[in-house]
This record gives sequence, C-alpha cells and structure tokens, in this order.
Amino acid sequence: MEITATLAGFIAHSRWEDVPPRVRHEAKRTLLNFFGTALGGCRDEAVEHLVAVLAPLSGPAQAALIGRGERLDMLSAAFVNAAAANVHDFDDTHLPTVIHPAAPVVPAVLSLSQKRKVTGAQFLHALILGLEAECRLGNAVTPYHYAKGWHITSTCGVVGAAAAAAKLLGLNEAHASSAIGLAANQACGLVEGLGSMAKSVGVGAAARNGLFAALLAERGFTCSPRMLEGPRGFAHVMGDKPNLAAIDADLGTRWEAARNTYKPYPCGIVLHPVIDAFLELKPKVRREDISRITVKGNPLLRQRTDRPNPRTGREAQVSLQHTAGVCFVHGAAGLAQYTDAAVAEPAVLALGNKVQIVDDASIAVEAAVVTVRTTGGGEHTCETRLALGSFERPMSDSQVEAKARALAPFDIIPLCETVWGLESTEDAGALERLAVP
Amino acid sequence: MEITATLAGFIAHSRWEDVPPRVRHEAKRTLLNFFGTALGGCRDEAVEHLVAVLAPLSGPAQAALIGRGERLDMLSAAFVNAAAANVHDFDDTHLPTVIHPAAPVVPAVLSLSQKRKVTGAQFLHALILGLEAECRLGNAVTPYHYAKGWHITSTCGVVGAAAAAAKLLGLNEAHASSAIGLAANQACGLVEGLGSMAKSVGVGAAARNGLFAALLAERGFTCSPRMLEGPRGFAHVMGDKPNLAAIDADLGTRWEAARNTYKPYPCGIVLHPVIDAFLELKPKVRREDISRITVKGNPLLRQRTDRPNPRTGREAQVSLQHTAGVCFVHGAAGLAQYTDAAVAEPAVLALGNKVQIVDDASIAVEAAVVTVRTTGGGEHTCETRLALGSFERPMSDSQVEAKARALAPFDIIPLCETVWGLESTEDAGALERLAVP
Repeated sequence: MEITATLAGFIAHSRWEDVPPRVRHEAKRTLLNFFGTALGGCRDEAVEHLVAVLAPLSGPAQAALIGRGERLDMLSAAFVNAAAANVHDFDDTHLPTVIHPAAPVVPAVLSLSQKRKVTGAQFLHALILGLEAECRLGNAVTPYHYAKGWHITSTCGVVGAAAAAAKLLGLNEAHASSAIGLAANQACGLVEGLGSMAKSVGVGAAARNGLFAALLAERGFTCSPRMLEGPRGFAHVMGDKPNLAAIDADLGTRWEAARNTYKPYPCGIVLHPVIDAFLELKPKVRREDISRITVKGNPLLRQRTDRPNPRTGREAQVSLQHTAGVCFVHGAAGLAQYTDAAVAEPAVLALGNKVQIVDDASIAVEAAVVTVRTTGGGEHTCETRLALGSFERPMSDSQVEAKARALAPFDIIPLCETVWGLESTEDAGALERLAVP
Repeated sequence: MEITATLAGFIAHSRWEDVPPRVRHEAKRTLLNFFGTALGGCRDEAVEHLVAVLAPLSGPAQAALIGRGERLDMLSAAFVNAAAANVHDFDDTHLPTVIHPAAPVVPAVLSLSQKRKVTGAQFLHALILGLEAECRLGNAVTPYHYAKGWHITSTCGVVGAAAAAAKLLGLNEAHASSAIGLAANQACGLVEGLGSMAKSVGVGAAARNGLFAALLAERGFTCSPRMLEGPRGFAHVMGDKPNLAAIDADLGTRWEAARNTYKPYPCGIVLHPVIDAFLELKPKVRREDISRITVKGNPLLRQRTDRPNPRTGREAQVSLQHTAGVCFVHGAAGLAQYTDAAVAEPAVLALGNKVQIVDDASIAVEAAVVTVRTTGGGEHTCETRLALGSFERPMSDSQVEAKARALAPFDIIPLCETVWGLESTEDAGALERLAVP
C-alpha cells in the first residue's frame, strides 16, 4: 500500500472543475467561520504573547495578522493566525474526528496568497485539499489517537496545512509526498496541554510547520516515501490499529471537507448537545431548587469535559461543570460565559458541583440526556438528539455570517461578500486586506 | 507525583558550584564533539536546503551558522546548527537511550549566548542541565519509545533545549515548568523519516522549538503543569509504561549528562561494535573469498540497520549491509564510506548481500559477534565486547579533539582551546566567533 503517494498524487493532479459545488460552498462557510473566530481571538492573551515573542524574531513583512494588521514573515503569520482562530475553541469541527479543520490549514494558504498572486478559485481549491487530507488522516487514527492524548487538530492539522500549501505551490506528486511526509514528521500536540495556552502552540505550529514542510519540499528537500503508512510512520506510531483505507479510499468522490460543522457556542463541541438541553431546561426550574444535574452522554463527553472547578476561562471551555453553572445561572453560553471572571462566580461553582456524569456508549457524540432534580422532588428531563451546529442540523449560511460578524471588532460585510464570491475573485489577496482594521 | 515541577525546580535552583568537575569536563567534550560534527555537516545538502528556505524568512541577524558565517534570527540559527551537527549521525550518543544529546541542546544555548552576554560557566551550566533533562526523559520512555517509532533525539531533545534555554534565561521554577511543558507539547519526529532529509527537520525543530518554548515561558505564556507525567502528557502518550522516577530521582547526584559518548565512525551507533569486528577481520580474509558474513547482535541492531541496498549515503549510515561492504572493500568506515557514490560501488553491494543478521538479546548493544565464512570452508570469528567510543571504552580527550579538527574545514585550534578553558571564559560569545571561517 502506497498511501502517502496516493494522497500526494490526488493533491497534485486534482482539478478545480472536479470539485463539486457543494464542497466548494462548504469551504466558503469554513473560511468565513475561520475569519470570524480569528477576528474574535486575535487579541486573546495567548495571541498577544505569541506576537510579542515572534514579531522581534520575524523576517520580512510578508503576511498580515488577521484583525490586527501587523505583518510578519509567512511562517510566523501562519502561526499567529492559526492560534487566534482556535484560541476560543469556537472554530469549526469535523465531528467524526473532533478536528478543528480550518485553524491549521487556512493560515498556510493565506500566508502564501499574500506572497504570490493567487486567484480565489486556487485559494479555495488548495484549502479544500488541505482540509481533505487533514480529516482523512484523522479518520484513519480515530478514536485511539485522541483518546491516547494527541491533540488531533494539531497532529493532523500540520499535514493538512502542508497539503494545502503543496497545491498552492503547484508541487508535483513527488514533492507533494515530501511535503506531507515532512509535515507528519513534525506532528505534535498533547491533550494534556488543553485548558492552557499550550494548546495555541500546538495549533499555531501545525499551520507554520505544514507551510514550512511544503516550502522545503518545493526546493527538493527529500523525505521517506511512506511517512503516513510505514511501520514507523504517523498512522502506526500515533494510531493503534489505524484504518489506512480511510486516507485514500474514494478520493475525489467522497469529500470529508464537506462534512465540516460550525459551533454556536465557544466551548468544546461535545458540550453542545448538553448546552441545548441545559438552555431548554433553564426556564423550567429555579436554580436555587436544583439538587442534582445528571448528564448522560457518550463516554467522550466525560473524558474531555469532566473538569470541576476550572481556574481559568480557557479551562472552563472544556468543563461540563462550569457549563452547567453558566447555563443555569446566566441562561447563556457565549464568550462572556467563558472568561476568567465567570469561573469565579459562586453561583456558577455551586451549580457545577451538582453535576453527575453518566457514560452511555449508545448515545452519539451529538446527543445527550439531561435530568435536573429539585430539592422538592421534581424531575425534568431533556434529550438533545442533534445539537444545533451538528452535521444533520447545521447552522445556516446566514447564521455562520452573523456569528462571524458578531465576533469581528469591525465591520466585515465586505469580507463576507468576498468570501461568498471567492470563486470568481481574481486576487485572493483581497481577503487579507479586508480582514484587518 | 509532580515530576515536571520537580525537574523545573532543579533547573531553576541548580548552582554551578554543585556541578561536579567530571560532569563539567564531560560537557566540554560534548561541546567540542558538537562543534566538530556541526563543522563537518554544515555544507551537507540538507543543510543547504534549510538555509535556502529559512534565510529569506529569517528575522534579525542574531546568531551565526556554524562553519558558514551567515547570521539568522536566534530560532532559525538554532534549527540549522542542530541539523548540521546531527546530519552525518556522527554526533554524541547517550547509549542507554541512543539519544544524540548535543545537537538539539547546544544550538539553543549558542543562539542565546550571542543575543545576551553569557559567561563560559553559565553556558556550560545551562548546557549540562539541558542534556540532563533530555537524557532523563529518554530514560523514562526507553525502550518502548524508539521501538515504537519515535526519533528520540528529536522528541526528548526539544525538552532538553527548553531546559537549557530556561536556565540561561534565568527562569523561575514556574516559568521553567512552562518552558518544559511547551517543549513537550512540540515533541515530534518519526523513525520512518530516518535515512532521508526528514531527520534533519526533526532535530532542527527540537532545538528551535525548545528555545521558542523558553522564550514564550519567559513572557508568562502558561502551560498545564504536568506535561511530562500527566495522563495525557509526554510520558504516557509517547511511552508505554514509562518509568517516571527516571526523570526526577537523584537529581543533582546522579548525572546522565556525564554518561555521554562520542563516535569514531559516522554512522548509526549500533553499528560501531560491528565495525570494530569487521576491521579486525578484514586483513584475515580476501574479500573475493567471502561467502557469508554472519553478524550476531542485540535485536536493536537488526531493527535499526537491516537495510540492504541503500540508495543514498544517508541511508547507508543505518545500513549494516553497506557497512559490511565498505569495511571489507575499503578497510575503513569514515565519511568517505557513507557517500552517495559509495553506495553504488558493485563490490560493496556484492558483499552487503552476503550479510546474515542473527538476533541475540543476551548481547549488549555495545557488543557484537561477527563470523566470516569463505568459499574454501574457512571461518573467522571476532567478538567485540566494547566498541571504541562506548561508555566503558571512551575516546580520549585528544581523540575527541582530533576528530573535531579533522571534520572542520578550517583550523579550529583556537576554538578547541576556548572549549577546554570555557569555565574561566568571561564571554561565551567567543565560541561563535571561532566557529565560523
């Protein structure tokens, strides 16, 4: 099996006219959601630290930092933009893998499109192929990979970024294979780091290092040919019994890039069905009367979000206890509910301590059953079958646009219009100019 | 267990006067061997590609490329210098883990010492602590880690680089913990990439990203506190049943940094005892008469070097078959024997095809038994108990210096003198000036 070569060949030979309209459209939704979350995250403390360290070490001012306007070298800009897009965990999600696909991939394409003249169609095409490589690789190592402790957005993201950059650079099959391989060789990011700024280093590095891999490959820098499927390659080392066929089966007919979803709430995706239920139950009980909140969900829910008493807003984003607290105290789960201030609220903490989590493998990740019991013996149950933002119940185009506009610190109507019409734009560099104040 | 915190505290609080003389002396041998191999590798094709890609993206000219003289930003220079030092696999080896300790760690210290004023003692102290952290982490995950497919020099090297940089930056315990954690979060490098230029990306990234981690931590960039020992941290994710005590037991009394060794031959360390035997047997047989070469060794020997018909000099460095060929054809195993030209020699190929490898777990990695049979029925056996360059049979100081001088493309006597007297040097920046033409 020559999986890396097959994937590289697909990327090198893919033609824009072979990409179905629904895949193109989904990529535009992905891109707009990306700009929204990057604009929302571009002033986060972690991003400020990254800029403070990277800017004095940066090379030529080649690419802009979204929402900020400083220009750094291509690699450093890709790092910062990826970190910004993902920092609030409000970015897109490929649900089968829980990868956030856009954050590592878009910045690589964006950096290159500022350095070289790229049409809107070329931009979208490269983006789609990068998302496709990333999510397929994720499928091959799921569920072991994340459960073991790999932050899959970072580890698979670097390969996606390399694939996208390889397409935009016009690499041939051999060079695209090296780009993918050199990216796989840089795959990193530990789940242990989630809930701290470390997450942003993993995701930023994915974008930067994927682009770096493609630039090396363009020069003829070589790489072992079987870095994905070889016995000591990515899939076997970082996946237990990987499903290698997930990488190369049905390339060009089945599109993982079209299975992307967008979040209405800025926290771990597995919390979303629970939030839908919490918010539906909220008007039915007085919070003072609540004696217990039982959350029945897929075991992934507990694995990723059983985090009582988070100390920071960032930890709170992956805390089921905190989320229960804010939903029943504030009746909302927006950015304001995941701040350092919110985690310190006594009422939120008190409700969080009443949460009980029950594993049920028969419940899908997109679903949850919440039961609230009251001191008076009352009991209210709400089942979410499909969370808003799930694949089967997606946010609409206008909901995605409204989310992006709400996150942006300035008017981005021109940016939204450019994204929706990107296929017919001559110069994708316009995106950058419209994404800075 | 708070392993990361303990290690960070050790680094933050270690005093130069607590470091025993023999540890200091070994660090100078390590440093001199590093300069030798970096000078020998600084014009390798992989290094040329790295410079060609990184130089146009580099920031301020803060740090020199060893043996070349170009100056790049601190991070990029660390990347290139690490790659150069390791590219020929001629650098140092911590035998319990088969880590090449210096390549990722020295360049981080070297870059910082050019940006900020550092004494020779401070330089050595930081270097020793970096090597110590790196090798202890390696001990904790050996043997599973490498056997699974992790290139341990890269994966543990990034933590060593961060630890060294943390010391030189004077980080406190909390910040040193973040530096270590942010480095662990960037740990990467696959064994599948060995034998191609991919190796240099892993080792270069280790130096660069470790330094980057420390610079972030210096600014207050946060990291989960248990990145080494946490359930989804480095040791559990990248090691099977890690021996966590190897990281923090006897800190300051047992020194892994003093267990470093240096190679007389520019190829995989597990090949060295075999080479000693080959070279001893060579005068005893006419190569035309050889019918079979049986090599009995530790199973690691076969795992890492059973590579018939390598296509490049780089692959040949980890090929037992090629090594047998050059030893019996050339009677030598120097840099000239591991070139692209050498792999194409018919006589070398022919002899390589006569190699038979036999696993014997009772044989140490430093040992091997070679039997040569001839068409006339002759049989010659040679057993190497301790390869030259092994811990028990080390190269002498003058052998290390001679090796470095032979590798350098210009006279490095002043550099050698500075290294041997480094403890009493006021400005470690002198090293850089003496390491460029």
